[in-house]
Amino acid sequence: MDDMPPGFRFYPTEEELVSFYLHNKLQGKQQRLDNLINNRVIPVVDIYGFNPSDLPQLSVSLCHKDPEQWFFFVPRSESEARGGRPKRLTDSGYWKATGSPGFVYASDGRPIGFKRTMVFYTGKAPSGKKTEWKMNEYKAFEGEVSSGAQLPPLRQEFSLCRVYKKSKCLRSYDRRPLPDAVHIGGRVPQHVEHGSELTESLPASSSLGDNQAGEYSFWNIDGFWNPDS
Amino acid sequence: MDDMPPGFRFYPTEEELVSFYLHNKLQGKQQRLDNLINNRVIPVVDIYGFNPSDLPQLSVSLCHKDPEQWFFFVPRSESEARGGRPKRLTDSGYWKATGSPGFVYASDGRPIGFKRTMVFYTGKAPSGKKTEWKMNEYKAFEGEVSSGAQLPPLRQEFSLCRVYKKSKCLRSYDRRPLPDAVHIGGRVPQHVEHGSELTESLPASSSLGDNQAGEYSFWNIDGFWNPDS
Repeated sequence: MDDMPPGFRFYPTEEELVSFYLHNKLQGKQQRLDNLINNRVIPVVDIYGFNPSDLPQLSVSLCHKDPEQWFFFVPRSESEARGGRPKRLTDSGYWKATGSPGFVYASDGRPIGFKRTMVFYTGKAPSGKKTEWKMNEYKAFEGEVSSGAQLPPLRQEFSLCRVYKKSKCLRSYDRRPLPDAVHIGGRVPQHVEHGSELTESLPASSSLGDNQAGEYSFWNIDGFWNPDS
Repeated sequence: MDDMPPGFRFYPTEEELVSFYLHNKLQGKQQRLDNLINNRVIPVVDIYGFNPSDLPQLSVSLCHKDPEQWFFFVPRSESEARGGRPKRLTDSGYWKATGSPGFVYASDGRPIGFKRTMVFYTGKAPSGKKTEWKMNEYKAFEGEVSSGAQLPPLRQEFSLCRVYKKSKCLRSYDRRPLPDAVHIGGRVPQHVEHGSELTESLPASSSLGDNQAGEYSFWNIDGFWNPDS
C-alpha cells in the first residue's frame, strides 16, 4: 500500500468515513484493524490541543502525502463527558460552527450519522478573526436507523474530523495553478490543433527556466510503484 | 493493491494523468510498466467504437469499482493520422466539444498538456440530443515547454480520456442521496445534541426496511483489507 501508483490516494466518501472508519473505531471490537487504521490511515488526535496548521504533520503513513485534507479521530473531551457543551478552544483561537448541520446518508438513503462544518478563528470569541482553516466533524448514530422509530442518539466517544483549508482554487483533480505561480501571460488558446501543431507561443516574460525541465520531477516511478513487486 | 482499504481509490490530478500516465504511454520505453498500467489502471480503448454507457464496464481491475469516472488511452484514428480532423462519431451519436479548451499545468506552473471537454449527443449533428455523458480529453506536449520558445506541438498518437456522467448531485465525497432515494421527509435538524440525544424522529412514510439494516453491507472488510497481510 505504501507503493501506490500515482493517482491512488485516500479520497473517502462520507459513507465510508462513517460506516467503516468511525463505526469500527466506536465498536472497538477489532483491535488489530483499529491499530492498523490508527497507525496508517486515521490517527487519534485531540485536535484542540493544536493549532490547525500543526495538524497536517500529524497525519500518518498512508495519508501523509495528502496536501489537501487530513483526517483524525477526536476523543470526546472530559468536560463534554461530564455533560458540558463542547468548547472547541485551542491556544490561539477557537472552532465555530458554520452553516447548518446535516445528516450523512448511506447509498440507500439511510441516515448513518451527522455532520457539522466549522471554521477556525484566531483570538477570542466573539471577536476572533476568521481563518482559511475548516473542518467537517462527523458523528455516528448509535445502532441502526429503522423505519418509524426515533433517530437513535449519536455516539459521542469519538468523532471523525476532516480538516482542510478553504481553497482559492478548485479541488486537486481540476487544479489550476494559483495566480502567483503562472507567468505565461494567463492566455489560453481559444482554438487550436488544426493539423497537429500548436501555434501559440510563450511570451518573453515567461519565468520558466531550464531548472524546471526535469520530466518526472514529481514522482519517482521506482519509488512509487515497482512493476516487479 | 487489490486489497485497498475503503476510501482508497484512483483519484488522480490532471498533472498525474498527463505527466505520468500519458507521458509514459507516449514514450513507450517501459514496456512492463506500460502493460501494468493498461491491465490494471488505464486500458487502451477506441472509445468511439462504443456508446458511452458501455464504457464503464471496460475499465480494469484497480478502477473497476469506480462508480463515477472511467479513464482510457484512446489511440488516434486512422483518418486523423492521415491529416483529417477528429470525427468522434459513434454508432448512436457523437461527441462535441463544449467550453474552451485549456492548458494542463504542473504544480510549478509549467504547461504540460492540453484539455478539452466534450458532451455526448445521440442522433446526427447538428440536431442530436444532448446527454449526461461527458469527457475530458487530455493531450500532452511533445517535449518540454521552455522559456521564450514556442509551445511544442501536441503528441497525437494517444490521448487520455476521462469519461464521466454529469452529476445531479455533488462529488462523491460530499454525496447526498438523489431526491428519489430519500423518504425521510427531507428534514434536517437545525440544531441538535444538547446532551447526547437526538429528538428527531423518522416519519411513518419512511421507506427504510429491515432488509437494509446490515451494518457493513457496502464493504466486506476481510475482502478489502486483510490486517494480516
